[in-house]
Amino acid sequence: MRDVAIVAAGMTRFGELWGASLRDLFVEAAREALINAGADQLDAIYVGNMSAGQFVGQEHLGPLLADHLGMAGVPAIRIESACASGGVALRTAFLEVASGASDIVLAAGVEKMNDGADVTEILATASDQETEVYNGATFPGLYAMIARAHMEKHGTTEEDLAWVSVKNHRHGALNDHAQFPRELTLDQVMGSAPVSEPLRLLHCSPVSDGAAAVILCPLDQASRYTDRPVVIRGTGMATGSMALADRADISFLDAVALAGGRAFEMAGIGPAEVDVAEVHDCFSIAEICCVEALGLAPMGEGRHCARTGETAIGGRLPVNTSGGLKSKGHPVGATGIAQAVELFEQLSGTAGARQVPDAEFGLAQNMGGTGASSVVHILQAV
Amino acid sequence: MRDVAIVAAGMTRFGELWGASLRDLFVEAAREALINAGADQLDAIYVGNMSAGQFVGQEHLGPLLADHLGMAGVPAIRIESACASGGVALRTAFLEVASGASDIVLAAGVEKMNDGADVTEILATASDQETEVYNGATFPGLYAMIARAHMEKHGTTEEDLAWVSVKNHRHGALNDHAQFPRELTLDQVMGSAPVSEPLRLLHCSPVSDGAAAVILCPLDQASRYTDRPVVIRGTGMATGSMALADRADISFLDAVALAGGRAFEMAGIGPAEVDVAEVHDCFSIAEICCVEALGLAPMGEGRHCARTGETAIGGRLPVNTSGGLKSKGHPVGATGIAQAVELFEQLSGTAGARQVPDAEFGLAQNMGGTGASSVVHILQAV
Repeated sequence: MRDVAIVAAGMTRFGELWGASLRDLFVEAAREALINAGADQLDAIYVGNMSAGQFVGQEHLGPLLADHLGMAGVPAIRIESACASGGVALRTAFLEVASGASDIVLAAGVEKMNDGADVTEILATASDQETEVYNGATFPGLYAMIARAHMEKHGTTEEDLAWVSVKNHRHGALNDHAQFPRELTLDQVMGSAPVSEPLRLLHCSPVSDGAAAVILCPLDQASRYTDRPVVIRGTGMATGSMALADRADISFLDAVALAGGRAFEMAGIGPAEVDVAEVHDCFSIAEICCVEALGLAPMGEGRHCARTGETAIGGRLPVNTSGGLKSKGHPVGATGIAQAVELFEQLSGTAGARQVPDAEFGLAQNMGGTGASSVVHILQAV
Repeated sequence: MRDVAIVAAGMTRFGELWGASLRDLFVEAAREALINAGADQLDAIYVGNMSAGQFVGQEHLGPLLADHLGMAGVPAIRIESACASGGVALRTAFLEVASGASDIVLAAGVEKMNDGADVTEILATASDQETEVYNGATFPGLYAMIARAHMEKHGTTEEDLAWVSVKNHRHGALNDHAQFPRELTLDQVMGSAPVSEPLRLLHCSPVSDGAAAVILCPLDQASRYTDRPVVIRGTGMATGSMALADRADISFLDAVALAGGRAFEMAGIGPAEVDVAEVHDCFSIAEICCVEALGLAPMGEGRHCARTGETAIGGRLPVNTSGGLKSKGHPVGATGIAQAVELFEQLSGTAGARQVPDAEFGLAQNMGGTGASSVVHILQAV
């Protein structure tokens, strides 16, 4: 396989973007990436999207979006793995370039969630319809069960959960693209309305519109597009049991651990070498579970990281410097690509006020459902 | 890139399968392929599916289906390109094996359309929501416009359209997996109820449930699984204008021609060398447009092929020996893989009563919407 680099990125602001349609959002992010690369043609397009069929009555996004980008003709494929759709689109784009089949590929993600649809009901279609949805489960409810299990097993507290939100909002306050770019106090989080106990409103990522895009090419062609390419050293993907009821220990995300292990093996590094990470904090408990499953914190110790500042900018291993899903927003199909955009900026030294000094290795972890699918990428500055 | 072979296939019967769920259908086809290969593990799974979110309230098919196949852990990705989802899943699986990242990959397709949903409305989400759907367009209506344009430009008649259905039902009558395995007379087709003139009921493919699966590996490992591998010599994909209104000539399918050209170039052969083809006859006019766009018949001559028997089994170039979408059925996400299953049988000499003698090269052409996305594969017996 050829070495593959990310050479440019673009993204919209995330938020309730009532004035922009699905296609508008994609075109804005994709055009920014193309302009940043100085590229005017593509060999292929991969678009991560969870559920435009249900959200806005539009499937078949590949040709629609290629067409609206002015690139009808270019092969364009929609990839779906629920909230991991963006990360998986990055993986498939990587494989196409690595294979030698294509030299310049756009990996994008987009979701238009604010358009009048019943968001909670649509998101629930990422869990097991027959055993979970029909019995009334929603994602806040499922993650609340994960949180309870983690509390029982590891002594995690509601305050531990709240510190994740406080930290990520501190980071997001520095990010112009964030949906909620403002700080929160611990009291605000602890006092916010219960959604599904122990999860409160400010433990939950918001409903968002947005798009993100990165451009990939073989490393040996990267100098055509940028002086500061970022190499994709590892990609790992895994699935796990779809329904929580089928898992031995719901406080541990098997697919995240498996995907992380595969990505680390491919990259030839371990967790200790990671300098900056974006992990999938759809709910604050998820960040705690993910840093543990990835080996970025010892098992049972993940709950302390946000409070102690270990995972804050300036700490041992900054996590979710972008603000994460919590503060930056979570247009589900775009999230995995937005993680790659943040790491591209961090590793190319262009992250501004959020910059982690001298970051060499970055890790992005994206997952679908309650972690039934997960994909991990390891990126390196060159 | 490594040479990649198909080494096993499986599929369900297509039809109104009220007793089987989406996951049941996938597992039946995937297990048959695994048993035929004698394989008990996979490196990755790609699943083509257009719209399970809308049809049965289930997104996130990758982990769901891996889990129900007893393979939780294996990377599993859902691919969507409307009715071309299956063909595109084959393409992405091919690229993963060709890249060297994986050695044994399942490419499958599944759709469960008969489950109470409004099928015509859901299928319409594969066309342009803003310019077509909101103005009342449905696929029978859009393909009727294509048929009218073809009639005006090339003198195509309603009888020409009807012969496509007659031919494909003759083929399908020999296929145990077909939804409608019986012959039709010309009079039956010509006398069937108008759906959207000039298209009548028996010019239209049916609403179907079903799944299909093939297993891919590097050619140099194929002997582990079969004595009769079939090599994927070429893959080509293209998009075109999403909306009919944006096309210069709606009787010509640009994306089909472009995808075909790319696949032929990669395979190093031309249309004259094709011995058997499966093309996307969602409506009878589509088969005529596709054989012309692929160069399998001269422009304007496609309309004669079914009547003269050129494209019947025993003719110059048998097309849709499986019965095609018309007789075999069209569970939209499964169709592209079912085409590969038919070619695998033809090229490995196991097609029984439908066998095309001494077939060496096969072509499969699958498309989404009114051809806004198309994917073509060229397979070779070895």
